[in-house]
Amino acid sequence: MQAPRPQPYIPETPRFAEGADTPRDFLERCIEKIASLEPQIGAFVATDFEAARSEADASAERWKSGRQLSAIDGMPVGIKDVMETARMVTEQGSPLFEGWVGGRDCAAVVALREAGAVIIGKTVTTEFAATQPRGTRNPWDPERTPGGSSSGSAAAVAAGMAPAALGSQVIGSTIRPASYCGVHGYKPSVGGINRGGSFDGFSQSCTGVIAASLEDTWVTAREIAARAGGDAGYVGITGPMSLPPAAAPQAVAILETSGWSKATDEAKEALGDARRRLEEHGIRVVDRNGSASVAAVEDAITNAMDISMSINAWEGRWPLNTYSRDMDADKLSQAARDRLVEAEALSQEEFRDLLAERVRVRGVYAALAGEVDACVTLAAPAAAPVGLDWTGDPSFTVHTSLIGMPAVTLPVLADDGFPLGLQIIGFTDADASLMAAAGGIAALY
Amino acid sequence: MQAPRPQPYIPETPRFAEGADTPRDFLERCIEKIASLEPQIGAFVATDFEAARSEADASAERWKSGRQLSAIDGMPVGIKDVMETARMVTEQGSPLFEGWVGGRDCAAVVALREAGAVIIGKTVTTEFAATQPRGTRNPWDPERTPGGSSSGSAAAVAAGMAPAALGSQVIGSTIRPASYCGVHGYKPSVGGINRGGSFDGFSQSCTGVIAASLEDTWVTAREIAARAGGDAGYVGITGPMSLPPAAAPQAVAILETSGWSKATDEAKEALGDARRRLEEHGIRVVDRNGSASVAAVEDAITNAMDISMSINAWEGRWPLNTYSRDMDADKLSQAARDRLVEAEALSQEEFRDLLAERVRVRGVYAALAGEVDACVTLAAPAAAPVGLDWTGDPSFTVHTSLIGMPAVTLPVLADDGFPLGLQIIGFTDADASLMAAAGGIAALY
Repeated sequence: MQAPRPQPYIPETPRFAEGADTPRDFLERCIEKIASLEPQIGAFVATDFEAARSEADASAERWKSGRQLSAIDGMPVGIKDVMETARMVTEQGSPLFEGWVGGRDCAAVVALREAGAVIIGKTVTTEFAATQPRGTRNPWDPERTPGGSSSGSAAAVAAGMAPAALGSQVIGSTIRPASYCGVHGYKPSVGGINRGGSFDGFSQSCTGVIAASLEDTWVTAREIAARAGGDAGYVGITGPMSLPPAAAPQAVAILETSGWSKATDEAKEALGDARRRLEEHGIRVVDRNGSASVAAVEDAITNAMDISMSINAWEGRWPLNTYSRDMDADKLSQAARDRLVEAEALSQEEFRDLLAERVRVRGVYAALAGEVDACVTLAAPAAAPVGLDWTGDPSFTVHTSLIGMPAVTLPVLADDGFPLGLQIIGFTDADASLMAAAGGIAALY
Repeated sequence: MQAPRPQPYIPETPRFAEGADTPRDFLERCIEKIASLEPQIGAFVATDFEAARSEADASAERWKSGRQLSAIDGMPVGIKDVMETARMVTEQGSPLFEGWVGGRDCAAVVALREAGAVIIGKTVTTEFAATQPRGTRNPWDPERTPGGSSSGSAAAVAAGMAPAALGSQVIGSTIRPASYCGVHGYKPSVGGINRGGSFDGFSQSCTGVIAASLEDTWVTAREIAARAGGDAGYVGITGPMSLPPAAAPQAVAILETSGWSKATDEAKEALGDARRRLEEHGIRVVDRNGSASVAAVEDAITNAMDISMSINAWEGRWPLNTYSRDMDADKLSQAARDRLVEAEALSQEEFRDLLAERVRVRGVYAALAGEVDACVTLAAPAAAPVGLDWTGDPSFTVHTSLIGMPAVTLPVLADDGFPLGLQIIGFTDADASLMAAAGGIAALY
């Protein structure tokens, strides 16, 4: 396995408690990075440095007097541009919404502000958080995609423009771009973070966090959930407010997923190396060959992509239908138009069957909980592909979206000299346990 | 029991299949009713007769050539003003959104248009579909409330301004106004109708239908669900496209609910009379005194109002918080400001406990399914109260909202000479069975 090339930019994690750094100084370093790198990378749709500086100064005062609002008080955070912000545009990666300002902050942004975080800008999303890219480049190589749909969030964090940014994932849109950009990504259990005010109505989608460290993914998500809760009807992420202490799992399952046949040899070797590290640490490792439960999961998730795409198509029929009929249809991408055609060919009865299959797969996966503490696999079949027309293959992530499991990606592997994530997958609503396991596994690198 | 006074206006059901009536003629009769009665009643926020006439003419052509799009092709439908419409305002009953046009049709309106329905206008809602009334008067007596929050929808149907209108219910906002206005109301199983584009994010809320006949409630809801499905992650209402044939239930439970102590003597007598009719028809009737299961349900739903109000408070924290901070807070009612204060005093841990209690109550109610085919109770403790400052007591409806059961109200009872609904409650996702039972019970009157 070729060693990864040196990280081009070093993303920082805010550390204001010690007093050696201040929110304003941290923010200015982020702004400098944006000033120098944004022309090349294109991570942001909008920024508001004036407001951010004022928020950072207020945060600095709070830290100075010991009245900080939370652990993320003063942390600059980027917001994926499918999430509404009161004073910045929310364009959803679509020319249909160019310049649109709804006047409201979405639930997660309200919570971030209540926690003292500094909203530094809106990060580029593919069109409607689906497939059509919007030009963001990978900080490791401008010829490569940063992944999607949370393209700008991953690129901004990787480039040191912000230590954390919100993403979302309905197929692979948080874990994959984090993998491609060599940063940490966290997709919570389904329902984990309130999506009020996010243009994201899919039943298997979830707001997530991309950040410079595992700790920042957890603390940011947890601070939001404590204030905004989960989606309606969901408690949302619970557990300690600080990162659960690292605790190597006792047993893990290695999953191949439907992505295995597409994985590069180097990526497969990297996962093999991860397995050896786990075993050398005394962790019991099972896979489809040695465990009937794992084999059952592998079988059950074989069609995760088809099922997910069909579920999303039906659930995405609206608003694509009103965009197409009541707004300027010429501003929809061909991909969006194709999805609408697919959606309108589906029936309520077919959707009923798809949901039933999703329930069945969830049951098969849940049965694993008695046998292992977590599952481990790649975050993507390879490093970020060259080219900006395609955000990459989500085969390794789609099953966690389908069944609502929490997942993190650790930037500890490499492929072709570029970053590749090691994905750790937990069990629904046991996100804190997943974090402990991920921390334990990260410590093996 | 005093007989109800004569119905002031006769709501009609469209019948275009026979060819004796046309969508345009029907629409013109609705428009005449609006022209003559709207100044007194105030059921609409906006109307668009020009567009409606054009839609009605197109529908008439389809019926003439046998190419009608659905059973509700040509039916004028009013849309509760929390639901987005592309070319009419969506003001949510709030001065904050005066004149707001989002440019999109919500999922249910897209589906109605696909079914050929004629969107006649936006009906008045209380502020954010909560408690603050917006002046609509009851067609039976302008000094009385039409109920809320679907005030305009119930009033419009009762006054013959539209044969059907969409409502929503998170506590009692469809069943209660239908009861007060002497029309039919249907609140589906939770998730039954896609709420995409409705400003209604509560986990126990549901889009419903208020209509001139039981058939129209079902057919309208079913045609929408067939095209738009349910909420994300829900199949939505299933069953026959036409009203399930009336079938008197074999056994029903009479529920007192927490509303019993507030019910008028005449209302209690009306329910007693309903019980006698059921028994005379050979239907087995059980209640809390003769059935341990019913007693368990009555106990479990005693606090349904408190639990629901707290769940809604937490889930309604957003967007009230951004309305209050990022928009003009002076335009929020005192009631809305009070709800935000209540919401911000709640914690994620308290919400977790509330959800757990909701699950427990659901389980207790579901256990009844083996014993009875439906539950029967009042739709409200009395006829519509005098005064426009309060939309009335929802004690008889809140438990179905809490646990997601489908319910209908039949305008067959009376109190003080004004209409009162008989509420029939079914079991989750068995909406078609509920309709059959409700039809069977309606036939006893």
